Amino acid sequence: MARRVTVYEVGPRDGLQNEAKVVATGDKLALLAALARAGLPRIEATSFVSPRWIPQLADAADVVAALPAVPGVTYGALVPNAKGLERLEDALRRAGPGHPPVTAAVFLSASETHNRKNLDRTIAQTLAELEALVPALRGHGLEVRGYVSTVWGCPYEGAVDPARAAGIVDRLLALGCEQVSLGDTIGVGNPDQTRRILDLLLRRARPEQLALHMHDTRGAALANVLAGLEAGIRTFDAAIGGLGGCPYAPGASGNLATEDLVYMLDGMGFETGVRWKELVAAGALAERLVGRRLPGKALQAELARAGG
Amino acid sequence: MARRVTVYEVGPRDGLQNEAKVVATGDKLALLAALARAGLPRIEATSFVSPRWIPQLADAADVVAALPAVPGVTYGALVPNAKGLERLEDALRRAGPGHPPVTAAVFLSASETHNRKNLDRTIAQTLAELEALVPALRGHGLEVRGYVSTVWGCPYEGAVDPARAAGIVDRLLALGCEQVSLGDTIGVGNPDQTRRILDLLLRRARPEQLALHMHDTRGAALANVLAGLEAGIRTFDAAIGGLGGCPYAPGASGNLATEDLVYMLDGMGFETGVRWKELVAAGALAERLVGRRLPGKALQAELARAGG
Repeated sequence: MARRVTVYEVGPRDGLQNEAKVVATGDKLALLAALARAGLPRIEATSFVSPRWIPQLADAADVVAALPAVPGVTYGALVPNAKGLERLEDALRRAGPGHPPVTAAVFLSASETHNRKNLDRTIAQTLAELEALVPALRGHGLEVRGYVSTVWGCPYEGAVDPARAAGIVDRLLALGCEQVSLGDTIGVGNPDQTRRILDLLLRRARPEQLALHMHDTRGAALANVLAGLEAGIRTFDAAIGGLGGCPYAPGASGNLATEDLVYMLDGMGFETGVRWKELVAAGALAERLVGRRLPGKALQAELARAGG
Repeated sequence: MARRVTVYEVGPRDGLQNEAKVVATGDKLALLAALARAGLPRIEATSFVSPRWIPQLADAADVVAALPAVPGVTYGALVPNAKGLERLEDALRRAGPGHPPVTAAVFLSASETHNRKNLDRTIAQTLAELEALVPALRGHGLEVRGYVSTVWGCPYEGAVDPARAAGIVDRLLALGCEQVSLGDTIGVGNPDQTRRILDLLLRRARPEQLALHMHDTRGAALANVLAGLEAGIRTFDAAIGGLGGCPYAPGASGNLATEDLVYMLDGMGFETGVRWKELVAAGALAERLVGRRLPGKALQAELARAGG
């Protein structure tokens, strides 16, 4: 098994967008710098969705314009539409020619109802728009990542046929997405299901074209990561401290915590390039910025040890 | 793979002994009844350690004397020494001839320092005492379970050679223990390590003679359970709601939550006999009794859904 794993940090975007307390732009940049210093190679920094949808990320352009340059670190930004691309391009111009590498990400759901509630259009309509958007992003020299959510289950429909995700992955890869991240948006997945989904998807994609984005809502995120590792997947999304709750179950956990992921990968001898102490420091910073204790277990274990 | 898994509930003992707030005996019995009604086949109810060590469990005899009889449910009680056996026997006499089935459990550590700090004697001394205690328990018609803690790592010594656990398991099985539960007391284990440990231990024990007792201190408990399932293990310990913290890192998580374990096993098609709604009700009761939100993730997800 290849021993190199990419930990794809999504806390500043997927985490913060589900946090009630709005974090100041300067504080977000401090968190991004802390994450970059911890050696995380990929950090999703923000999203150019409409500020009306997600006020927390209304400062997307200011964040992108000031991304901390750290060798080896590539940032990401969600771009939902042509307007988002325009805003991203403006921000990159403001950042100047020497700005850190930035990639774009597009997103949709594997379940019709979730896609409609989240994006106000059908999956077919969304895909039709992506037929224009993804090439436009690539035309601007941006690498594009695709996100497919609710692959393991939908908060409205329940079970989702893996063939639905497979069809969407086919389209995203055909459009030129470098990688598609498969999301267990509500954290209902189990390792057998993960194996079945990957069994289907790895017939049409190379392992490096896929990532797993597991939520830890019911505690099985790392068990699903293990199934993914065994299937050959080498990119896993996670959020510092488990930042961000579950929008469908307020008070429950959302994203897999980066520290939990890195701790397990380290123990299994995988190379992530992530430095533990700096990662825990970034987790402690994230807690201060959102003003609450975060659910990441390894983070809490480290903070308790440090305090004891 | 055999599809039947035994979920061994340890919350009333291993959970409560690490909870600061002392729970009244009647409330403990209500929790035991709720767990039994949820279909958990094995429930460790209390411990006959000295009340000076663990004041929370000073009422062990009163608990055992009043265990709720539910068909299919066997209770367990920790018995550290001859004095504990005497107290257990007294309690069973008070319970009367028709009392529910009760088994005994003995315990020691795989790491010398942890054993000394926990039991105030060396592993060799503890084993010498168990040479008398286990046959005495069996002489009273009690089935005996052995616990070996710190198999995955020690809070004082760090790494622990799996050969240490292997030697202890050999002794416990030779003494007539029905099953030995291997504990990751501080929650540092990863699935590769679990495979290596089980690889060694399954050369000397049948799968049904071993159980895994994983702590979720760093979020990898279910990943380790998955490795155990794949190795053929079919008994896993867990505590309702993730009751009980980590004594070596106050504020961090301890026991794997029963709800998280059952949710994953259900999803994978394993039969546990546990009824989900009743299990969640028991978790909600456990929260009320200890007066704090418990860390079990599936429990929190269910309670959030119910409230939302």
